[in-house]
Amino acid sequence: MTPGPLGLVAGGGEVPLRVAAAARAAGREVFAVVIEGWADPAEYRHLPHLAIRLGAVGQAIDALRARGIRQLVMTGRATRPSFLSIRPDAGAARMLLKIGRAAFQGDDGLLKAVVRVLEEEGFEILPVQALLRDLLPPAGQLGAHAPGPEALRDIRRGIAVVRALGAVDVGQGAVVQQGLVLGVEAIEGTDALLARCAGLRREGPGGVLVKLVKPGQDRRVDLPTIGPATIAGAVAAGLAGLAVEADGTILVDRPATVAAADAAGLFLLAIRPDEFLEETSP
Amino acid sequence: MTPGPLGLVAGGGEVPLRVAAAARAAGREVFAVVIEGWADPAEYRHLPHLAIRLGAVGQAIDALRARGIRQLVMTGRATRPSFLSIRPDAGAARMLLKIGRAAFQGDDGLLKAVVRVLEEEGFEILPVQALLRDLLPPAGQLGAHAPGPEALRDIRRGIAVVRALGAVDVGQGAVVQQGLVLGVEAIEGTDALLARCAGLRREGPGGVLVKLVKPGQDRRVDLPTIGPATIAGAVAAGLAGLAVEADGTILVDRPATVAAADAAGLFLLAIRPDEFLEETSP
Repeated sequence: MTPGPLGLVAGGGEVPLRVAAAARAAGREVFAVVIEGWADPAEYRHLPHLAIRLGAVGQAIDALRARGIRQLVMTGRATRPSFLSIRPDAGAARMLLKIGRAAFQGDDGLLKAVVRVLEEEGFEILPVQALLRDLLPPAGQLGAHAPGPEALRDIRRGIAVVRALGAVDVGQGAVVQQGLVLGVEAIEGTDALLARCAGLRREGPGGVLVKLVKPGQDRRVDLPTIGPATIAGAVAAGLAGLAVEADGTILVDRPATVAAADAAGLFLLAIRPDEFLEETSP
Repeated sequence: MTPGPLGLVAGGGEVPLRVAAAARAAGREVFAVVIEGWADPAEYRHLPHLAIRLGAVGQAIDALRARGIRQLVMTGRATRPSFLSIRPDAGAARMLLKIGRAAFQGDDGLLKAVVRVLEEEGFEILPVQALLRDLLPPAGQLGAHAPGPEALRDIRRGIAVVRALGAVDVGQGAVVQQGLVLGVEAIEGTDALLARCAGLRREGPGGVLVKLVKPGQDRRVDLPTIGPATIAGAVAAGLAGLAVEADGTILVDRPATVAAADAAGLFLLAIRPDEFLEETSP
């Protein structure tokens, strides 16, 4: 049995487009469900696709089924909806009933519930890295620059903060400079975090951005993502560099991202947090 | 032995000015050390005072001693300096040596270390509430409006988030709407937190701001503070109300704050977090 066409549930940004291109380059047919408000349907005009509002999940499931699609990739930037902002169609209402309102508490609850229901409906959810190799860098220094001792201390503190937040299912990032936590990421996203940290930075050595996968996070969907725009934000915030979770951070356009970091003198480190803490233990 | 004049180490905002007025109304002489960049020396022109930059702590200690001052109140808005931004005078350099650079890691470390050193130097640090009665509201509903069930759930989630942050010595506040954590406060302060949450709010019932005292926080200095400006920010962010820690939050100008909340339809609740969690347990 062939796996059939790939269903791509697309949020914003480049990653879903790259997934589609990679799947088609590998000879696989792709059908995209483009979520309005998150992604721009015009960017999918070269692909068979259906543009729907978030509440029309029932319609999307019918369309996927009609095309014999059994495997889905869900990726791209998304804005967490509130329970009350969804105007569900009949299929979505059924799904919401199964999911329950409790899933709307917490950042990950909803996504996990959606994945569970889609699996119950017979779909297989593929991780984006199954289609795009080299998307998740392994542990190591990715660019030309290495962090100094002050940055290593800041990364240690950032790990502690991001983990504490992750334990209550909030955010994935923090900016630390000279031990001070300049900012913590909730739903505003990394770009907004970096933008406000530009106005909060202190004199002296620049800070670090630490981004980690939340404990219990489903690594098939919703991994932290960085790219050239993240580097630009980090430069504007006067950071010394970035530490992201190895094998758990989507690196959009790695050559451009690394080149931007190198050019700006920023380090770019993929870390396994436990190993990092052990290796840098004072 | 009389307690002598009161030394007032003044950061920004109204609270130090109110402390000075209350102490003088009670017949006590006040000498203010006004920290430039935090407070405006012009607002202290009616008081004997010394305006210094943060690094000139040695000069301040000499001035306090010369006036026979043994009791200090430290209050007002402050911006956390980085270690490298302080240009210490001789006295401050001695103090920094005692404090150690480690104190600059974490939000509270520095303040605690400063308090410890001042105590070693023979000063007694008074809590602001020793001079200003009714500054810290006890548990209960402060205004005309009560939180609804959705707000109670959001407060519960806010308590969990703020406590998780407090455990790693970050921030004192979070905004939660319908279970979603819209924002978490680091050093940007509550006003900035509220300002960005205005752009992140979801449809439906408004969220809540939760502000708590950090575990291990020295309640003589650096308590969370709210006032009429906080209510204005909460209104702009579309919040349903505020929950602040009872006996641990400075309420600047209570009548004006409560009146602003009442007029805008916001609830204003002083809570003891453990009791609140128990009473609202689902």
